[in-house]
Amino acid sequence: MSLAIEPSDYGRRVLRAQAALEPRGAAAMLVGVGPELEWLAGYPAVGHERLNLLVIPPSGPVTFIGPRLELAAAEQAPGLSAAGVRLRPWAEGDDPYRLVPPLLAADAVLGPGAPPAPGTTPAPGFNPALGTTPAPDLPPAPGTTPAPRAGARFLISDSLRGAFVLGLQRVLPGATWGLASEVLSPLRRVKVEPEIALLRAAARAADRVVATVTRGPLIGRTEAEVAREVRERLVDEGHDRAEFATVASGPASASPHHEPDGRVIRAGEPLLLDIGGRLGGYCSDVTRTVWLAGVAGVAPDDRFREIYALVEQAQSAGRAAVRPGVTFAAVDAAARSIIAAGGYAERFFHRLGHGIGLEVHEEPWVIEGNEELVAAGNTFSVEPGIYLEGRYGVRIEDAMLCTPDGGLALNQAPRELTVVSGV
Amino acid sequence: MSLAIEPSDYGRRVLRAQAALEPRGAAAMLVGVGPELEWLAGYPAVGHERLNLLVIPPSGPVTFIGPRLELAAAEQAPGLSAAGVRLRPWAEGDDPYRLVPPLLAADAVLGPGAPPAPGTTPAPGFNPALGTTPAPDLPPAPGTTPAPRAGARFLISDSLRGAFVLGLQRVLPGATWGLASEVLSPLRRVKVEPEIALLRAAARAADRVVATVTRGPLIGRTEAEVAREVRERLVDEGHDRAEFATVASGPASASPHHEPDGRVIRAGEPLLLDIGGRLGGYCSDVTRTVWLAGVAGVAPDDRFREIYALVEQAQSAGRAAVRPGVTFAAVDAAARSIIAAGGYAERFFHRLGHGIGLEVHEEPWVIEGNEELVAAGNTFSVEPGIYLEGRYGVRIEDAMLCTPDGGLALNQAPRELTVVSGV
Repeated sequence: MSLAIEPSDYGRRVLRAQAALEPRGAAAMLVGVGPELEWLAGYPAVGHERLNLLVIPPSGPVTFIGPRLELAAAEQAPGLSAAGVRLRPWAEGDDPYRLVPPLLAADAVLGPGAPPAPGTTPAPGFNPALGTTPAPDLPPAPGTTPAPRAGARFLISDSLRGAFVLGLQRVLPGATWGLASEVLSPLRRVKVEPEIALLRAAARAADRVVATVTRGPLIGRTEAEVAREVRERLVDEGHDRAEFATVASGPASASPHHEPDGRVIRAGEPLLLDIGGRLGGYCSDVTRTVWLAGVAGVAPDDRFREIYALVEQAQSAGRAAVRPGVTFAAVDAAARSIIAAGGYAERFFHRLGHGIGLEVHEEPWVIEGNEELVAAGNTFSVEPGIYLEGRYGVRIEDAMLCTPDGGLALNQAPRELTVVSGV
Repeated sequence: MSLAIEPSDYGRRVLRAQAALEPRGAAAMLVGVGPELEWLAGYPAVGHERLNLLVIPPSGPVTFIGPRLELAAAEQAPGLSAAGVRLRPWAEGDDPYRLVPPLLAADAVLGPGAPPAPGTTPAPGFNPALGTTPAPDLPPAPGTTPAPRAGARFLISDSLRGAFVLGLQRVLPGATWGLASEVLSPLRRVKVEPEIALLRAAARAADRVVATVTRGPLIGRTEAEVAREVRERLVDEGHDRAEFATVASGPASASPHHEPDGRVIRAGEPLLLDIGGRLGGYCSDVTRTVWLAGVAGVAPDDRFREIYALVEQAQSAGRAAVRPGVTFAAVDAAARSIIAAGGYAERFFHRLGHGIGLEVHEEPWVIEGNEELVAAGNTFSVEPGIYLEGRYGVRIEDAMLCTPDGGLALNQAPRELTVVSGV
């Protein structure tokens, strides 16, 4: 079984994105290095400070602007060639932004000589020799660059670097700006094979890491040491790379985004693992909280049992609420109401979950007020938590797939309260 | 020897950045997650889709806006507290951009009721319930948010996500925009202790990985397998994490930013390693190209010897040209002229180097046309290459430190042509 995305799939994705532009009044989509470029063209470009940009007009040829020194890599990207994308390399020292306006559809471009937008005066001391990051507020030389029709609307990839955004705004003065996610999110959020198989494989790989790490010695080691073990095991279990390894012991488990540090893990406290990586480009993200009993067999105290049971019930209710046609708000509420009824509403202060795919956090958001509807093919986390500051916290997280018949958890690691010796 | 940046250093950095704003006419600096935030405040925030923003007005209190669920992490960031930064958490579902205008100095803000900027019409179908990434073109509700003085100039961190840039432009209509690097680059590029010690430690650690990997078996393994070994060894040698591992064999060595793949490494061809990671936050980045002779002892051919010798001489000349007061263009030219004289000007199609620090690529750029002056404390790569497409390539790269007396290579791995068995 090959789990790679077919090159022809990329071609179809680019065409679907392109077809969505005109109905939204968008003059072009401008996509830099990041998950959007990976989804559209399967190209995980290097990025950094050199502009890579996929320019998608509402019709006609699609062009990829990239640095010449990465040309060979771009030529080998199967998605770019399958999608019929033209490559337009730029040389060191060039201003790559000047390449963009001529690529746009005629009705987005007025012709040369339009005045620069107000406020685009040269920055003092700007030196074009800095080369690859021209100061954004240098105006285009009058008469040399086509200017966009006033009010033309361009969609930039959400993850585009700020320096690139300002560079594009410099060469497209008078335009208005929106996010490519407006078009891409509705497409990206409906996963199909082999995306689902990749997400499942990533989830199961992360589950195996949870199982192995929680079985092994933990007490007496630092959080940072265990985090390193987690990262190595994520790769051992098939991930291309580890992306994050939150290892939060004792009071740190009450901080949802704790960074593992030199704290020594002890008996008689919980350990929260929130770990993930990328497998075939797709992300895993699983959280489990276990109790470390130590050689003395210190049992969980009553408060811990209480909040664990609430989180477990809330997570189960959240999973059970997943089916096509319900709102994401309803899924959030199904879990949240249980924690609230238990008296801990204020101790569960984040959304229930987030979409998962090429990004570990992507749309849709499982959050109060989101009246968008869950659809088959959506994949997202269900991860309630209760955090008692200064004491401890509990979170349980699975990646869910919505099927036509309801929700399926891609993670299968045990969810019930697990007491391990930790030695 | 402790190599950590002192918390008090962060306080001084924030003050220096703040003091630079008024002379440049900047109404505020707005810094998101990324190397700019790490340099200013020592806070490697999680980031993703939730806004984290350090708001630095030209005078008065500095504020950090961040999601409530990361509040504990922000409170523990030594740089934020040492710099006297106020924390302003926002809750899930809030619009965090609304928090920014009230934090700005009075002379950057006119008061409520200014009209939205042209082009900031609501996107069709926008739903505020999506929560953490509000559509950027939703206008502020009239009369509810202070609007900036027309033309007020804001500096955003270069690495700020595009979605955040548009979100800020929405709540600060009529402003002009520049990059924080205008202020930060002159400060960041002059490294002091312990930054230099960290860069040296990172460089030496990467050197040891080059030595170990090139001594070991290579022939018959795939590039991807060797890349994984490189990443593991970078951590074994003291890096916090590996960042990149270009392993390019045979023809792939002619592609400067080749992504390691399933190609099996063979005898009788070169292997190019361009590897690096982060140690105490600071980056390593070293490149060496070795020849793999195999059991049959296949010697390098004459063309390879020729281009290797040219690159070695060019790299040596580039290093020798480093001293305070010369231009970066002159350093580039010192190396480039040797390759050009050898007849390969067209085959060396990238700049000579890049600054290195918290980012593996940062200012200054060692490139033709950059008349900025090298100064003591600057750290940057010197990495000429010659690339013969379809055949092979050579690159040699060191991280250099400019001292008051001239350049010092932080890397010490051998630079002369090295023939290894590869078995």
